Amino acid sequence: MNPTELIMKKRGGGKLTAPEIEFLVQGFLSGEVPQYQMAAFLMAVFFRKMDFEETTILADIMLHSGTVIDLSSVPGIKVDKHSTGGVGDKVSIILAPMVAACGVPVPMISGRGLGHTGGTLDKLESIPGFRTDLSIKEYRDLVADIGLVMIGQTAEIAPADKKMYALRDVTGTVESIPLIAGSIMSKKLAEGIDALVLDVKTGRGAFMASESEAEELARTLIEVGEKFDKKTMGFLTDMNQPLGSAVGNWLEIRECIDCLHGEDVPDLMEITYVLGGAMLLAGAKALSIEEGISKCRGAIQSGKAWDKFEEMVRRQGGSMAFVENPDSYPKSAFNKEIKSAASGYIDNIDALEVGFIGIMLGAGRMKVEDSIDPKAGIIFRKKVGDSADPGDTLAVIHTDNKNILEQAAHRLEKAISVATEPSVHPPLIHALIDKEGVHPWHRG
Amino acid sequence: MNPTELIMKKRGGGKLTAPEIEFLVQGFLSGEVPQYQMAAFLMAVFFRKMDFEETTILADIMLHSGTVIDLSSVPGIKVDKHSTGGVGDKVSIILAPMVAACGVPVPMISGRGLGHTGGTLDKLESIPGFRTDLSIKEYRDLVADIGLVMIGQTAEIAPADKKMYALRDVTGTVESIPLIAGSIMSKKLAEGIDALVLDVKTGRGAFMASESEAEELARTLIEVGEKFDKKTMGFLTDMNQPLGSAVGNWLEIRECIDCLHGEDVPDLMEITYVLGGAMLLAGAKALSIEEGISKCRGAIQSGKAWDKFEEMVRRQGGSMAFVENPDSYPKSAFNKEIKSAASGYIDNIDALEVGFIGIMLGAGRMKVEDSIDPKAGIIFRKKVGDSADPGDTLAVIHTDNKNILEQAAHRLEKAISVATEPSVHPPLIHALIDKEGVHPWHRG
Repeated sequence: MNPTELIMKKRGGGKLTAPEIEFLVQGFLSGEVPQYQMAAFLMAVFFRKMDFEETTILADIMLHSGTVIDLSSVPGIKVDKHSTGGVGDKVSIILAPMVAACGVPVPMISGRGLGHTGGTLDKLESIPGFRTDLSIKEYRDLVADIGLVMIGQTAEIAPADKKMYALRDVTGTVESIPLIAGSIMSKKLAEGIDALVLDVKTGRGAFMASESEAEELARTLIEVGEKFDKKTMGFLTDMNQPLGSAVGNWLEIRECIDCLHGEDVPDLMEITYVLGGAMLLAGAKALSIEEGISKCRGAIQSGKAWDKFEEMVRRQGGSMAFVENPDSYPKSAFNKEIKSAASGYIDNIDALEVGFIGIMLGAGRMKVEDSIDPKAGIIFRKKVGDSADPGDTLAVIHTDNKNILEQAAHRLEKAISVATEPSVHPPLIHALIDKEGVHPWHRG
Repeated sequence: MNPTELIMKKRGGGKLTAPEIEFLVQGFLSGEVPQYQMAAFLMAVFFRKMDFEETTILADIMLHSGTVIDLSSVPGIKVDKHSTGGVGDKVSIILAPMVAACGVPVPMISGRGLGHTGGTLDKLESIPGFRTDLSIKEYRDLVADIGLVMIGQTAEIAPADKKMYALRDVTGTVESIPLIAGSIMSKKLAEGIDALVLDVKTGRGAFMASESEAEELARTLIEVGEKFDKKTMGFLTDMNQPLGSAVGNWLEIRECIDCLHGEDVPDLMEITYVLGGAMLLAGAKALSIEEGISKCRGAIQSGKAWDKFEEMVRRQGGSMAFVENPDSYPKSAFNKEIKSAASGYIDNIDALEVGFIGIMLGAGRMKVEDSIDPKAGIIFRKKVGDSADPGDTLAVIHTDNKNILEQAAHRLEKAISVATEPSVHPPLIHALIDKEGVHPWHRG
């Protein structure tokens, strides 16, 4: 086979066969297909797409480029959640211990923040000592022992995806549904899970800004998951404003600690409970999402979710001092409050812009090699729909970088818009999607 | 500037600025922009195109990545011809000496055959000793001394184009009008010419199979040429059947020798005279294309064109023995005649397929490193429109490779179709295109 001919076939809108996709992906991993040919191929896929069959083949080949973890010796239906990424999306950190506390084992492999979105690994690593680079043996042991583990992609897991993702990141080929779906599913299928619940974000702060693209991505992910005999369902959720109050790694862990102690951050906990309910249904610990939600609430109220979180932090090497006494965590050198100039209602908080401001403050990275300041970020005191009077604090900036403080404050002021009248906003959870199709979602 | 952002800008259909194109092209040449980013960018250009301004900037930057030859010390208006490439297209080898014999200096930098099309350099090099790798000084001296030189692209000429073309060839990004136009014009503008006549091929055996694409390419080339103050005009010509009777390097040189001695191969000489007429008009040696054609005919009939060809071969180191006595050239080990099975009229000779059969026989290369057998090729005894009776020889195959003889013959039989009735075929020359627009072309 000739890589150039395969590039031209996809360029012309052709459908690649399994041997052709395998030739390209395995050849790329082994170095026989050079990066420049893979880059041209990925851009051709961006424009010409892949159909469901090609996407499944891609996921399968990337999955089997590495170790597929076998958790069959661990009793129970193992369930994971995957979010397509957003701003302030710290759901996993509350959700995973909560679901594990309800008896569903949660083996979770997460990613780092890149671009404007945060990453679960960076958040967890703001807890001093917390190790996300466990070996596969440690990973398996933790699922067996405590029913919960949260790690990063190891070198053994889907190496073809790892190499391909790194190339996509620098060649403008990230935002492609089949490539995103292949990448996500190859990693998730390697985890040893039996079922998967998806949180597919749509809106300004999501990678798929349009609802129709987000829905297409969700459908593709579900189809691929079901093809591999994993029960897969997902929710289409709003990512126009940041989720919860905190944006920034430790600030978000702090918010999770509060929520695990029972504090109600409405939008954050609404999504967390719905995803938790679905995971309990998938894990056969509830007969409906509603029953699952109710059990999850119980796990928070009883303190069992908190206990599970502490157990995980301890087992993964994290310092308990800050988790038990969050106020003792180091503070940013500089704070700045953003005040409301007018009287009215918060109409919009631009999640994409907030994500970029977070990077300025030190909370995120634009390049893989950039380092992160775990203390940096933003706390929102008002959310979309809240009323505000002149002088009210809308948000507080935290950073060690004095040079960018004024510029960040100016950008954040512009990212928050206040209207004189309250307006109607889309619901937080747009729809439930499963293999049967798209279902409207109304909170009970 | 960030290459990924520029890739994404083009991916989204954006228009790049001069500094942005320069950053990418110069960065690629210096190695700062890696091949994989350039490959993704080229594929984005394939889908999103470049407008005329971007194409001109691209040509300009590639042109100035190397030496721009100054021929101002050579008297006269220097004129070159460029063909977009076809099968059996040996026009330059007759045309350049003919035009030079009429007093218009012709400095010509040609390419090698790649894909299904032949290359002027490979044809010239079938003459033992013929050097196409002259230095720029030798090139300039030959134009000054004899008004004629035919060489290949040296390392000094448009190195950015050379590196980019090599990448396009292996990443499925050759067939893009702005990239083709930028590549052609950067080389042609470096030659030191004052005017350029284009032969833009359309049909099965051309890179631009559709007439509308060929016309768009011609218009783009002319616009870019005129932008650089070079008088530029072109013809849209048919490339559905091979041009002339011979396909294969020495076989084509042999055909050119015959034509330079006055033999009339109708389609080949029709195009050669029309292009020659236009070159004499551009070179101010004729007041109209028609007058130019008439002077070109005179140069063939008087033997001056032949004398000029011999002068060039001698000055570029070619052996005179075979040029003066072509029958003494070595012959292929195997010949096979293709016979007509039916009675009727030749309806089609598939130029693309003939090009590929030529490669099988040893006359062309699929990869840059492949070697060529100068003796190999096909001689057509019948052309489209000719009548044929059962048993008539349609074509003769020449090769040293016995293993592929039967397969090549079988493919060639299928590439020639015979109809019971003669059908109407498009004219050889479809149109004349200049900066004013597209003009119908009727032979006088």
